[in-house]
Amino acid sequence: MANASAKNGNGARNDKARIWGGIDLGGTKIEAVIVDARGDVLGRARHPTPPTGGPGEVVKELYGTLGEAAQSVGIEPGKLAGVGVGVPGSVDANKGTLSHTANVAGGWDAPYPLASDLGDLVGGKVMLGNDVQVAVAAEYKLGAGRGHRSVLGVWWGTGVGGGLVLNGVPWRGQGSAGEIGHMVVKPNGARCGCGRRGCLEAYAGRACMERKARSAAKKGEKTLLFDIMRDKKRTRLSSSVWASALKQKDPLATRLIERAIEMMGVAIASVINLLDLEAVVIGGGLGSRLGPLYMGHLQDAMHPHLFITERKPAMRIAELGDLSGAIGAALLAGPQM
Amino acid sequence: MANASAKNGNGARNDKARIWGGIDLGGTKIEAVIVDARGDVLGRARHPTPPTGGPGEVVKELYGTLGEAAQSVGIEPGKLAGVGVGVPGSVDANKGTLSHTANVAGGWDAPYPLASDLGDLVGGKVMLGNDVQVAVAAEYKLGAGRGHRSVLGVWWGTGVGGGLVLNGVPWRGQGSAGEIGHMVVKPNGARCGCGRRGCLEAYAGRACMERKARSAAKKGEKTLLFDIMRDKKRTRLSSSVWASALKQKDPLATRLIERAIEMMGVAIASVINLLDLEAVVIGGGLGSRLGPLYMGHLQDAMHPHLFITERKPAMRIAELGDLSGAIGAALLAGPQM
Repeated sequence: MANASAKNGNGARNDKARIWGGIDLGGTKIEAVIVDARGDVLGRARHPTPPTGGPGEVVKELYGTLGEAAQSVGIEPGKLAGVGVGVPGSVDANKGTLSHTANVAGGWDAPYPLASDLGDLVGGKVMLGNDVQVAVAAEYKLGAGRGHRSVLGVWWGTGVGGGLVLNGVPWRGQGSAGEIGHMVVKPNGARCGCGRRGCLEAYAGRACMERKARSAAKKGEKTLLFDIMRDKKRTRLSSSVWASALKQKDPLATRLIERAIEMMGVAIASVINLLDLEAVVIGGGLGSRLGPLYMGHLQDAMHPHLFITERKPAMRIAELGDLSGAIGAALLAGPQM
Repeated sequence: MANASAKNGNGARNDKARIWGGIDLGGTKIEAVIVDARGDVLGRARHPTPPTGGPGEVVKELYGTLGEAAQSVGIEPGKLAGVGVGVPGSVDANKGTLSHTANVAGGWDAPYPLASDLGDLVGGKVMLGNDVQVAVAAEYKLGAGRGHRSVLGVWWGTGVGGGLVLNGVPWRGQGSAGEIGHMVVKPNGARCGCGRRGCLEAYAGRACMERKARSAAKKGEKTLLFDIMRDKKRTRLSSSVWASALKQKDPLATRLIERAIEMMGVAIASVINLLDLEAVVIGGGLGSRLGPLYMGHLQDAMHPHLFITERKPAMRIAELGDLSGAIGAALLAGPQM
């Protein structure tokens, strides 16, 4: 990312403004921001993600959302110094392709040249990055990770994603690093959405916890979770549903969240023992909502497993909220900080 | 390490030869090598580690072993362009101190300035590194890791150590990275030598496997392990004892080694899912001896846990043998490759 930003920042032609666009492509919404050289958000827009239509529809809607954000600060998208996009799925940053994305516009498997297609519409180069990796990079530079050289980000939501910044540089491995959600916390353990057993996500991912809650309710276990869900007019156990149930001390919700926290403690401690990092940032829908209440519990779950007991990592909650992905995407494209 | 070598290599005064010294400090032996700029071993020596006497005795013996190796190629230690030492325990590379070492000369806890003390005897700067980390760096540059940019080294012996090279640079974290042996593979699992439960080392470390074997034998389980140990005039279940018992299809030895392999598969797969590395190098006493026979089994244990199934890491067995630590230590001090 460092190289990419240097190239774009320095290579910006004179007719370009010193502002950048960032887009976060999610399963239900597209979030776009316009940032200045310090990463401050000047404008923003949000559109729903097209539910069907494949990559072509997605590219159109990405451009529409970016255009609206740019318009809100009175600039043409073509005048932006650079544009970055954070996407869920497997990214080849060099080729600018996105593949294996299940939750967007019906999904597609083969690598699709999203960066060049969007770049044609924007009239400039577009950088592509993994959504969680760019959000963690944003927290590292502008948010909860500030002041630490090495950071693990744990994005706790429908799934459990992760991102690493090592000595100031995002670590992407061969493109897919950060899958802390698929570290094995219990061999032959609970079934995960990925088809394997015993992954962290099988215990802590919201989708897997919901499956477990539904099966417990079916077996007759009493819980407020689904009443709260209906009261809130939801069809899924959203973060706010879990938060309400916990507040009302619902036993099933409490048990499942505590199991999730225990397993997150195991996985995070294992990462710290392996990488000896300075700080951990907890983000994502569940992380942002439950983090403040459960941070002490998470530390209690982690600490017994730490090998270097006298050096515990700093634990922080993400600060940039819903915009971390879009801001991180903008950072891919250039602001020099 | 890159900085350190650049400084030492370039800063070498003209009266220094273009050869370097490397010392591997082990619990039972000290191994010293003299290498040229390509890392080729020109001379070597081996002394027993002083069983008592603390750091002072250790420094004297390190110097004695280095001196003998240097003499074998007809050079004074003071003429070496640089000297590196790989040590077991907690290293502060910048300060050149070693602390928390249990198995050397009676052991010591407080940080001891080993680098400057040895440097005074040698008459030059001495670099300090963790023994496993430097051995992995040596395999990366000169051995089984050649041609890969990112490598996990797993050193399987009395304990289970690890080292990481990420995009060509050893990753040391805050000084203690690489403790794959203390990643949790089973919460509330087997008791580890570190006092915790469920660490990889509790299943795969030779010391923990021996404890388990002794307790099984005590309970009446039949095994050849201790007969073989006595035949070989050992007091411990060494790697060669395990290898003989496996060859004779001893059921207890087979079961414990297979359990170790299963758990190594779990931990290594978790690391690959987190870091998306190109290659894994298996070294250490047990790793070098059993690796060739068990590599297929280890892959079978790993692969079901890999998240990116179409990209399996290359699996290699360490190539530099007993000298990897000493050669890696020499690399700390300077040869530019």
